Amino acid sequence: MQLGLIGLGKMGGNMRDRLRAAGHEVVGYDRNPDISDATGLADMVDKLASPRVIWAMVPAGEITEQTIDELIPLLSPGDVVIDGGNSRFSDDMPRAVRLAEHGIGYLDVGVSGGVWGKEYGYALMVGGEVDHVALAMPIFEALKPPGEFGFVHAGGVGAGHYAKMVHNGIEYGLMHAYAEGYELLEKSEIVSDVPGVFASWREGTVVRSWLLDLMSRALAEDPHLDKLKGYADDTGEGRWTVEEAIRLAVPMHVIAASLFARFASRQDDSPAMKAIAALRNQFGGHAVKSQAGE
Amino acid sequence: MQLGLIGLGKMGGNMRDRLRAAGHEVVGYDRNPDISDATGLADMVDKLASPRVIWAMVPAGEITEQTIDELIPLLSPGDVVIDGGNSRFSDDMPRAVRLAEHGIGYLDVGVSGGVWGKEYGYALMVGGEVDHVALAMPIFEALKPPGEFGFVHAGGVGAGHYAKMVHNGIEYGLMHAYAEGYELLEKSEIVSDVPGVFASWREGTVVRSWLLDLMSRALAEDPHLDKLKGYADDTGEGRWTVEEAIRLAVPMHVIAASLFARFASRQDDSPAMKAIAALRNQFGGHAVKSQAGE
Amino acid sequence: MQLGLIGLGKMGGNMRDRLRAAGHEVVGYDRNPDISDATGLADMVDKLASPRVIWAMVPAGEITEQTIDELIPLLSPGDVVIDGGNSRFSDDMPRAVRLAEHGIGYLDVGVSGGVWGKEYGYALMVGGEVDHVALAMPIFEALKPPGEFGFVHAGGVGAGHYAKMVHNGIEYGLMHAYAEGYELLEKSEIVSDVPGVFASWREGTVVRSWLLDLMSRALAEDPHLDKLKGYADDTGEGRWTVEEAIRLAVPMHVIAASLFARFASRQDDSPAMKAIAALRNQFGGHAVKSQAGE
Amino acid sequence: MQLGLIGLGKMGGNMRDRLRAAGHEVVGYDRNPDISDATGLADMVDKLASPRVIWAMVPAGEITEQTIDELIPLLSPGDVVIDGGNSRFSDDMPRAVRLAEHGIGYLDVGVSGGVWGKEYGYALMVGGEVDHVALAMPIFEALKPPGEFGFVHAGGVGAGHYAKMVHNGIEYGLMHAYAEGYELLEKSEIVSDVPGVFASWREGTVVRSWLLDLMSRALAEDPHLDKLKGYADDTGEGRWTVEEAIRLAVPMHVIAASLFARFASRQDDSPAMKAIAALRNQFGGHAVKSQAGE
Repeated sequence: MQLGLIGLGKMGGNMRDRLRAAGHEVVGYDRNPDISDATGLADMVDKLASPRVIWAMVPAGEITEQTIDELIPLLSPGDVVIDGGNSRFSDDMPRAVRLAEHGIGYLDVGVSGGVWGKEYGYALMVGGEVDHVALAMPIFEALKPPGEFGFVHAGGVGAGHYAKMVHNGIEYGLMHAYAEGYELLEKSEIVSDVPGVFASWREGTVVRSWLLDLMSRALAEDPHLDKLKGYADDTGEGRWTVEEAIRLAVPMHVIAASLFARFASRQDDSPAMKAIAALRNQFGGHAVKSQAGE
Repeated sequence: MQLGLIGLGKMGGNMRDRLRAAGHEVVGYDRNPDISDATGLADMVDKLASPRVIWAMVPAGEITEQTIDELIPLLSPGDVVIDGGNSRFSDDMPRAVRLAEHGIGYLDVGVSGGVWGKEYGYALMVGGEVDHVALAMPIFEALKPPGEFGFVHAGGVGAGHYAKMVHNGIEYGLMHAYAEGYELLEKSEIVSDVPGVFASWREGTVVRSWLLDLMSRALAEDPHLDKLKGYADDTGEGRWTVEEAIRLAVPMHVIAASLFARFASRQDDSPAMKAIAALRNQFGGHAVKSQAGE
Repeated sequence: MQLGLIGLGKMGGNMRDRLRAAGHEVVGYDRNPDISDATGLADMVDKLASPRVIWAMVPAGEITEQTIDELIPLLSPGDVVIDGGNSRFSDDMPRAVRLAEHGIGYLDVGVSGGVWGKEYGYALMVGGEVDHVALAMPIFEALKPPGEFGFVHAGGVGAGHYAKMVHNGIEYGLMHAYAEGYELLEKSEIVSDVPGVFASWREGTVVRSWLLDLMSRALAEDPHLDKLKGYADDTGEGRWTVEEAIRLAVPMHVIAASLFARFASRQDDSPAMKAIAALRNQFGGHAVKSQAGE
Repeated sequence: MQLGLIGLGKMGGNMRDRLRAAGHEVVGYDRNPDISDATGLADMVDKLASPRVIWAMVPAGEITEQTIDELIPLLSPGDVVIDGGNSRFSDDMPRAVRLAEHGIGYLDVGVSGGVWGKEYGYALMVGGEVDHVALAMPIFEALKPPGEFGFVHAGGVGAGHYAKMVHNGIEYGLMHAYAEGYELLEKSEIVSDVPGVFASWREGTVVRSWLLDLMSRALAEDPHLDKLKGYADDTGEGRWTVEEAIRLAVPMHVIAASLFARFASRQDDSPAMKAIAALRNQFGGHAVKSQAGE
């Protein structure tokens, strides 16, 4: 089938390749004319027959909203717009309502797989109405990994991004569990082959996983991770997951702690620990470190 | 080769089967004469040629210590005793020293795989001296999963149990990350197919793992986990992992939180939260729940 | 000076008493005519000379917004409206802008002190412009505790509610620290007089505080807190504090954990721990508790 | 009454002053002859009439054990030895048993008050037998703050150090709650007078405490704590508190998090966060910081 695909960066470009390899006709648009199949959104839309499916794979937030605003006058009733970016789920319903006023459908799709997706397939979590899902289903089939897993129609509008958000929140917690275990092994006087331990866990253990495979690979390349700094950005999904936990009164010690650890990793110094040092200084004359050095 | 195997319960019995299937000669001993190959430890030892390898697969603590005490006078210099149980790593070195006084070697082996190990192999984390590992290597080869992973000689005496302890600590954190994500999805008004979401994650996602497969399977059988109570015991390894983090000054928010959540799951009521209720009652006349019901 | 005071419940009624005792003229309005000094908002406003100061002490959210909407046509340029309720700080600036369009000033005031404030004074955290603070200063002076503390002009519009929000967030953490210590003492076989320990801490220790005094008093009345359930609601401020920590990338392990513990205290069963039980059931045949009882 | 006091450092020296001011006869011994009242332990003991009370105020661990070993042959049945240092509670019972073999009593005393104790009194938490407590009671009366609080006979041997351990654990949590609130206020764009906010809380609020007074004082001297580094040692008590929580299955999220934050404050770089960076690098080509700088 035909697909209009907006945004041909690392993700979008690979998706176009995978879809074409599956026999689909993709008309891609990107600001960069060297990789674009169309001169603009209007040109892209013109090249597609109704009912059209348009997949936006652009940065979440302002750019996604603008893209949808620009699409509305170009599309026809019966067309469906897909947001495959990392939008906050709460943006989906207002957007779906706006499109529905013009008879245009809307699907929100959480996409996992990163740079590995082109070869192995992208896991897709989809939110929206059944009819709209049905229209885009051949595209989903081509993008997802083979087999019975890797795709879910998770619920109504917003459910796709919601499921992806929780996926990423869980990912934070999983990564941090391995990271704490790594640090303990690294500090222990007793275990001498830490990369070997991680490698051994790749088969037959309870903790085996794709993330463990990656951790093992990283340690094989750099056994003490000497080349890296203990610094990690966080994308919006981790924050949104904890915000949702607060809204729904879900105890979320583990994922929140993982998020806070990332915050701390980006601080040159901790204001909270300065406060601890100040208190210790006040009450006991405990030795504290001053900025001057000590 | 020959192996003396003490303890033929769920784990030991399956290991005997797997070893025999690989062509090894296993003389098993168990208190239960119906499943035992020998009438006692002495009989078991008599049936083995020197240098003997004896694998104890009995409950950690007192029973393991007793078993080793009973073995010492029966064994000869050059023999090797393996503890495959869930001993605390700190018990290993005193035990190795005691055996070495009689010329007997010692290996500590962390075993992962549970009820699945018989078919797929047991991941083995081994601590001890190179010569002792070499002597038992054919046994390890038969027990471990096929392929390059699933076995590590992690370091000197204690390193096997240490690696297994950290494995289990990580396991606590991983499980709790999935559990928090599950609870959030379950509470959300937006996602309607929670089992479907977990199933979709089994391919192509960052969070895919063996534990995720199990979680997906559990949800397929009981979509809202209605048949279960939110109750979980903890085995020693989780506690020891956090104790080690304290000893080595490793920040361990995630694994500790997972452990504390298990503690809380076993309380009928929380004394700490009673204290919170008492304080709220004192300072603000906030509504609190009394035991009488309210 | 004159003050219009809206809402004469537990807080507002006590504040009226304290202000009158200090010689101020308070015209209170409440829906309950038995305690109201005026027949309605218009009547209340009529009884005050310009420039008027009107203090709203009503539930946060819709009721506060409605009250301000009703006040606007009744007031004159140069009047000042104070919100002393527990509004989210983010509501303050839109409200201040709305009032400023009519030449009316706005102050947000976080009020601490609860049922004890009438006698000992209410701590006040104020946000808004200097001129508006100056106009209401005699009222603040009468409400605050005597001495140099208990009042701050914390910053521009919103800063009063922000400071009160953080105050309450800290309160969550403090309470939970005492609560954890209480639970440990209560479980210990070694300490036999837990209420005595808490009482002893009231003088000369690092942990002495007003909350400790309350805890000691509660334990004097009910040494094992047998009459209480471990259940605690949370007001908005704790949630907002953690939301702000997320927005500003502040690691907030302690206050977040205190909040999550309150969430957990209100659950009959923990969905997350059901997931843990399900996983343990799947991978190891660990004993789990079924709903049927086991 | 008479007291033998071993260790005349900051704590012991001040205690001697306070006891003498209360009319007691203190024979102090210290390695430093300039401040010692006796030439050695034997000389100190000789100067005291039976039944003697000897208070050791020396560093916990080896030095305390040695001191008690040296005292045993010098003392007589009916004498009582007090350990006022920060010993782990689990050291107390073996020590009491050892002394009891010679007819010597033992009390363990947790002492709080630091440099402020000389003037305001030291809070005392005492463990041991009633008869031994009675013998030393005049000393306790002189050391404790005036009034009904500041002293507890918490239980049998070990209970004094246990109560002090929990006191310090709570202290960690309290300090960290204030510290997190401080960091949030400091980062907020809305509150402009953070020292003023802390000062305002000193009267009339729920969070008022001695620690808050110290925090306010520290901010008055250094409003952004620019002179300090966010670095904090931990003494044994915080670790022991969490270890006890693990032993007794007490959920202890808050105090453990406070302890872990201190661990993190002492790391130049976080191995765990290096592992996070390594994983992000592996799966997504996320930007990570290399040691070289990036």
